[in-house]
Amino acid sequence: MIQIGIIGSTGYAGQELVRLLLQHSEAKIIWYGSKSYVGTPYSQVFQNMFELVDADCLEDNLEKLSEQADVIFTATPQGYLASLLNEKILSNTKVIDLSADFRLKNVEVYEDWYKIEHKSPQFLSEAVYGLCELNREEIKKARLIANPGCYPTCSILSIYPLLNEGLIDPSTLIIDAKSGTSGAGRGAKLGNLFCEVNENIKAYGVTSHRHTPEIEEQLTRAAKTEVTLNFTPHLVPMNRGILVTAYASLTKKISQEEIHAVYEKYYEKEYFVRVLKPDLCPETRWVEGSNFVDVNTVIDPRTNRVIMMGAMDNLVKGAAGQAVQNMNLMFGLKETKGLEIAPIFP
Amino acid sequence: MIQIGIIGSTGYAGQELVRLLLQHSEAKIIWYGSKSYVGTPYSQVFQNMFELVDADCLEDNLEKLSEQADVIFTATPQGYLASLLNEKILSNTKVIDLSADFRLKNVEVYEDWYKIEHKSPQFLSEAVYGLCELNREEIKKARLIANPGCYPTCSILSIYPLLNEGLIDPSTLIIDAKSGTSGAGRGAKLGNLFCEVNENIKAYGVTSHRHTPEIEEQLTRAAKTEVTLNFTPHLVPMNRGILVTAYASLTKKISQEEIHAVYEKYYEKEYFVRVLKPDLCPETRWVEGSNFVDVNTVIDPRTNRVIMMGAMDNLVKGAAGQAVQNMNLMFGLKETKGLEIAPIFP
Amino acid sequence: MIQIGIIGSTGYAGQELVRLLLQHSEAKIIWYGSKSYVGTPYSQVFQNMFELVDADCLEDNLEKLSEQADVIFTATPQGYLASLLNEKILSNTKVIDLSADFRLKNVEVYEDWYKIEHKSPQFLSEAVYGLCELNREEIKKARLIANPGCYPTCSILSIYPLLNEGLIDPSTLIIDAKSGTSGAGRGAKLGNLFCEVNENIKAYGVTSHRHTPEIEEQLTRAAKTEVTLNFTPHLVPMNRGILVTAYASLTKKISQEEIHAVYEKYYEKEYFVRVLKPDLCPETRWVEGSNFVDVNTVIDPRTNRVIMMGAMDNLVKGAAGQAVQNMNLMFGLKETKGLEIAPIFP
Amino acid sequence: MIQIGIIGSTGYAGQELVRLLLQHSEAKIIWYGSKSYVGTPYSQVFQNMFELVDADCLEDNLEKLSEQADVIFTATPQGYLASLLNEKILSNTKVIDLSADFRLKNVEVYEDWYKIEHKSPQFLSEAVYGLCELNREEIKKARLIANPGCYPTCSILSIYPLLNEGLIDPSTLIIDAKSGTSGAGRGAKLGNLFCEVNENIKAYGVTSHRHTPEIEEQLTRAAKTEVTLNFTPHLVPMNRGILVTAYASLTKKISQEEIHAVYEKYYEKEYFVRVLKPDLCPETRWVEGSNFVDVNTVIDPRTNRVIMMGAMDNLVKGAAGQAVQNMNLMFGLKETKGLEIAPIFP
Repeated sequence: MIQIGIIGSTGYAGQELVRLLLQHSEAKIIWYGSKSYVGTPYSQVFQNMFELVDADCLEDNLEKLSEQADVIFTATPQGYLASLLNEKILSNTKVIDLSADFRLKNVEVYEDWYKIEHKSPQFLSEAVYGLCELNREEIKKARLIANPGCYPTCSILSIYPLLNEGLIDPSTLIIDAKSGTSGAGRGAKLGNLFCEVNENIKAYGVTSHRHTPEIEEQLTRAAKTEVTLNFTPHLVPMNRGILVTAYASLTKKISQEEIHAVYEKYYEKEYFVRVLKPDLCPETRWVEGSNFVDVNTVIDPRTNRVIMMGAMDNLVKGAAGQAVQNMNLMFGLKETKGLEIAPIFP
Repeated sequence: MIQIGIIGSTGYAGQELVRLLLQHSEAKIIWYGSKSYVGTPYSQVFQNMFELVDADCLEDNLEKLSEQADVIFTATPQGYLASLLNEKILSNTKVIDLSADFRLKNVEVYEDWYKIEHKSPQFLSEAVYGLCELNREEIKKARLIANPGCYPTCSILSIYPLLNEGLIDPSTLIIDAKSGTSGAGRGAKLGNLFCEVNENIKAYGVTSHRHTPEIEEQLTRAAKTEVTLNFTPHLVPMNRGILVTAYASLTKKISQEEIHAVYEKYYEKEYFVRVLKPDLCPETRWVEGSNFVDVNTVIDPRTNRVIMMGAMDNLVKGAAGQAVQNMNLMFGLKETKGLEIAPIFP
Repeated sequence: MIQIGIIGSTGYAGQELVRLLLQHSEAKIIWYGSKSYVGTPYSQVFQNMFELVDADCLEDNLEKLSEQADVIFTATPQGYLASLLNEKILSNTKVIDLSADFRLKNVEVYEDWYKIEHKSPQFLSEAVYGLCELNREEIKKARLIANPGCYPTCSILSIYPLLNEGLIDPSTLIIDAKSGTSGAGRGAKLGNLFCEVNENIKAYGVTSHRHTPEIEEQLTRAAKTEVTLNFTPHLVPMNRGILVTAYASLTKKISQEEIHAVYEKYYEKEYFVRVLKPDLCPETRWVEGSNFVDVNTVIDPRTNRVIMMGAMDNLVKGAAGQAVQNMNLMFGLKETKGLEIAPIFP
Repeated sequence: MIQIGIIGSTGYAGQELVRLLLQHSEAKIIWYGSKSYVGTPYSQVFQNMFELVDADCLEDNLEKLSEQADVIFTATPQGYLASLLNEKILSNTKVIDLSADFRLKNVEVYEDWYKIEHKSPQFLSEAVYGLCELNREEIKKARLIANPGCYPTCSILSIYPLLNEGLIDPSTLIIDAKSGTSGAGRGAKLGNLFCEVNENIKAYGVTSHRHTPEIEEQLTRAAKTEVTLNFTPHLVPMNRGILVTAYASLTKKISQEEIHAVYEKYYEKEYFVRVLKPDLCPETRWVEGSNFVDVNTVIDPRTNRVIMMGAMDNLVKGAAGQAVQNMNLMFGLKETKGLEIAPIFP
C-alpha cells in the first residue's frame, strides 16, 4: 500500500486526486494538506466525501510529511514547492508536483513568464516532465515529477505525432484552446462567479498565458527545432473539459488516411489516447471524469492546413489523473490502475 | 461472471447501466439492446464508450435474450415489458425492470395514471418493488424486480423514517421535487432542447405526474394508513440530480436532535443513505455519479412542520445504480459491488 | 427629465436599474454610486455599458446626492439606508430603497430576522411597501418606498387573490421557491462560484430566510388574519428568474374555472401580471429581462389543495423593474414607461 | 408605419425579429408566417409574447404577403426563398432574406457548399449583401437584401480593417469561432438536446462549414485579392453569443497602438461596432440582447501575428438585429431605431 500525502488537497485538482486515489487499490492517503482548512474535516470541505474520507485537514508541512509518505502530490500555487524543496525531502520520498515549478528547464523562461523568482533551480535538471506517453521510461526512475499543465497535455498529445514526423511546419502552429471553469481554481474571485462565467465565452491571457512556453519547450524537443507558436485559451461555461483546436501548414502532400495512420501508429499502445474514427471530432463530454484524451485531425486541401483536435478532462488527464498515472509508473504498478473508470455522460 | 442483457441500452439510463457494469468485477454485458440503433456499434452511439465497449447494438429480443442471460435489465418505455413478459422468460432468467410496468400493485391505478392497458397483470403480485433499503429480503429471492422511479426513490427515503414512526401527519404531506434534464430521456423533443431548458425553471405534470401513485403506494405501506399527497416535479437546467423538498406537520412535539436521531437509527447500516450532519442541506452536486442519497431535515417550530430533504443522482440511485444494487442482492454479491465510486465534483 | 441617483450601482440590481433607466425617456442618471469602484468608469465595471454610460463611479454620499437628485435608488446592503436616512434627505428628494430596511413595519421582527439594529425606526410608519399592484395609491404620494424583496413580490402576487378571497386556509400555506444566482449578489464568495453553483440544486435558509416575515406581513394584511407559513428558497444554476410553487388547502369546493376567474378578475387591469391560459405553468424563460409576473394555478381534487405558481425575473420585477415602476407612479408618469420591452428568449 | 411580414417567424431568429420590431416605433408586423404552426396563436408558440402579440400564425405565402407588406423578412431554410422569389414579389415589396440564398454571388459556389440547386440565380447580382457597416449606400437603394450569416458578420467586422489596410497576409488567415446553441435552430434534433450540449464543447463542420465561402467572398472584396482561409466553428453551452478569434501574420512591423488606431478610425462613426479599450478582450456576455459587435486585437511580437477578436449576439447583430438595421436603412429611418437597447447582463 503506497502511503500518500497531498499538499493542497482542498483545491479542485487536490480533491480530484482524492476521488481517484479512493478507487485505487494500492493507494492510501495519509495526509490531507491544506492552507485554509487546517483542522476541518475533509468531508466538510467537500461533502461528496462524506462517509468516504474520515480525516481532518492538516497543515501543508512538506518536510514532516516526507518522513511518512512514499509519495507526495503537491497541488499548490506556483512557487510554493520551489521555495521548500530540498535534497532531504527528495531522499525521503517521491514528489509529483502539479504546479508549474519544475516544468520548464530554463529558469529564465520560468521567471519571465511566471513573474516570480525560482527558489530551487538546482532540481530543474533532475525533474522529469511527466507526460507519460512521451517520457515513460524516465518517469519510472524519477524522484521528482513535473506533472504537465492541462493545456500543454492536450496540446502536445494532439500535435506531437505530426510534428515529430516533420509533417507540419512548426512556424505555422496556432493553438486555440477552450477550457471549463474548474481550471480557474476554487479561489473566490469575481471573474469566476456563476453569473460572470455562465452564458459567456471569452479569450484570456492572449499571447501571455503561462502554458505557452511549456508547450513550446516540449514541442521543440519533439520537432528538434525551435518552436514558437500562438496559444489562446478561452473560458467556457462548463465545469470540466479542455478542447484544443490546433492549426498548422502541411509540409508535403498527404492524404487524410495517411495522417490518420500516423496517429494510429503513435498511439496504438496508449490506453489513454483514443484516436477517433475518421470524420469524428473530439468532444469534452465523451471524456469527462476519465483519463482519456480523444484526438483526431482534418485536412483542408484548400489551404493545405491540418486541423488537429484533442479533448480531455482538465482535472483528470490534465491534472490528477495524469499524476496518478505517473505514480503508477514510478511504483511499478499497472499504468492504468485506478484510472480505468469509463467517462461519465451526460 | 453474471451474463447480462440490457434492453433499451441506448437511452440515458441504459447507458448509465453500461458505465456502472463496466466497473463491476462480476458483470459481463452480452447484449446491448436497442430499438433505434440495431447494427450500430454501441461506442458510436455513446462515444465515451469508444475502446471500452466493442459490440454492436442488437434488436430488443427479450425471449431470445432470456436464454443467454442470467439477468435482463429493461430500460424501456412504459408498457413494453408488460406486453412481452411471460413465464418462460422468467423461468429462464431474472428481470430487473427500470420502467414503471410492475411498480404499482393495483392494475387500475396503473392504467388510470399511465393511460395504457397493462398486458400482464398476472406478474404484478410476484414483482418486488426494488427499493433495496426497504425490501432487501424480498429482493434477494425475486425473479422480477420493479426498479423504483427516480422521484419515488428520493422521496420515499427522505420521508420514510418519520412516517413509519408516526411522527408526521400523512394527510399534510407535500413533495416539491426538482430534477436534472437527463430524467426527461434522450428523445429529440422540442421541450428538451438546450435553448428551451437552459436558463429556465418550471413545474410540470402538476397534480398529474405518474410517480405520484408510486410514492403514495409505498408510503401507504410504511404508514399503514392511506397516504394521498401532492407531488410537484420541476425541470432544472442541469444534467443529473434530483432534489426533494418535502413538507409535513409533526404529530407531536419533538426536537431537532430527536428527529435527527430517528434518521440515524433508520439508516445506520445503509451504505448508500447518508444522513448529513445537522444544519447541512442535501445538494445534488455532492452525490453526482454515485449511488448515494443524502438526506436531512429541518424542524420549524413556528409552523410545527418538518422539512425533509433528499438529494441523489437520478441516473444512479434513481435508475441504473439501484438496478445494479438490486442485481447484487439477487445474486448474493456484496450489495455495494461496482457502486463504490465516490461522487464526482465539480 | 427626472434627475436620478443610484447608491450601490455596481451590484447586479444597481446595474439592472441602469439598464432599464437608459431606455426610459424621462430619466437621467446623474450619480453612479459605489463603495468599491469610486473613480472607476462605470462602463469598466460593466462593459455592456461601454459607449452607453460615460461616467465614473462616485462615492455613496446620500446627503450630498439628495440635493441634486429628484429620486434616489438605494441598492445597498441591509442596514445601510437605515443608518443614514434623515428628515433632511427626505425633504430634499424621494427615496426608493431596494434593501429590506423599511419593508417590515415591526422593528423587532426586523431586528430578529436580520440580526442588526434598526437605526431609523421613525421612518417605518411612513415608508410605503412598494408592491405596485397592491399599494398603488399610497405609492403615488410617498416620499419613501420600501421596494419589495424578490421572493415576496413573486409569492404575494401568486397567492394574494385566493387569500384575499378567503378561498385558501392561511395556516396551510407553504411556499417552495427557486431562484437564479444573480439573487445572491456580485460578492466574490466561494458558494457563488461557477463550479459550485453549476450542475447543482440546493435549498438554503430553510425556515430562516429573511424574506419569510416580509411575505407573512403582507399576506397577513391581505388575509386580515395572522399568516405564518413555510418558505423555502432554492438556488438554481441559471442567471435570472424566480419561480414560486405555493401550496394551500382550499376552504371550500371550487372549480378550476372559478379559481382562474378569480385571478383574471384581480389582475385584469394589471399590465405586468399575466394570468396564463388554463393548463399552462409559469416558466422563468418567458419573463426574462421583463417586468412581467406570470401566474397560474392548478387544483388537486384528490388532496383538496391548490398549487399556485408564479414566475418572474428577480432583477426586474423582483428589484430594478419594480423600482422603476414605483418611480413612474411617484412622478405621475405612465406606470409602464421604460418597462415595455418584451421578454428576451432564448 | 412600415407594414411587415415575417416568413418563418417561429424559429429563433424569427422570434427575435418579433421581439425587436415590437419596440420599433415605426414597425407593425402584419403577418406571422410559419410552416409548422399555422392557425396557432403566436403567443402560444413563444409564451414570452403572451399579451404582447395577439395574432395567429399564418401560412408562409410569399406572393400574397407581398401585396400587403412594405417589407418581408424571410427567416427560412436555405433554398426556400430562391425557389419562390420572382419579379412580381420584388416589384411589390422589399425583401430581407435571413437565409443564405442570395449571399454568394457565384451560383456554383452556392450549389457546391449548400448541396442544393439555386432556383433563382437571376437575382444574385441585384441582391445586396446586407453588412451595413460595409455596404450602407447600396443597402439604402436595394429591393433585395442578403442578410449576412452570423459567423460572417462577426468575422468580417473583426478582420476587415487590417485586411483592407493590407496589414495582414490574407493567406495566413485562420478563424476559430465559437457560438451559442440558438445558432443551431429550434429543430428537435438529438444533437441539440440539453444533455448533449450542456457541459460540452466541440468543433463541427471542420473545413466544410457553409459560412466559409461567404466570409471568403466578402474578405476577398476587402483585400482585393483572393482570400482562402480556415474557418472552424465550435458549439458552446450557452444560449446566445458568438466569439471570433482570428489569427493572421502581419505584413509589416506595426505597434499595438497603431493597430488599435486603425480600428478606431474604421469604426469611429459606427454605433454598433465598439472598439474596446486596449488590453480588453471581447466577451459575449457584454453584448447579449443588443446589436453591438465588440472588437479588439492583440499583437504577438514573438510570432509576428495579430489576434483579432470579435463578440456579438448571434440572434441580434448576427440575424434579426442586422435585418432591422437593414430595414432602417432601406426606409430612410435612423439606422439605430429599435436597436438602442443596452445589452442585458447577467
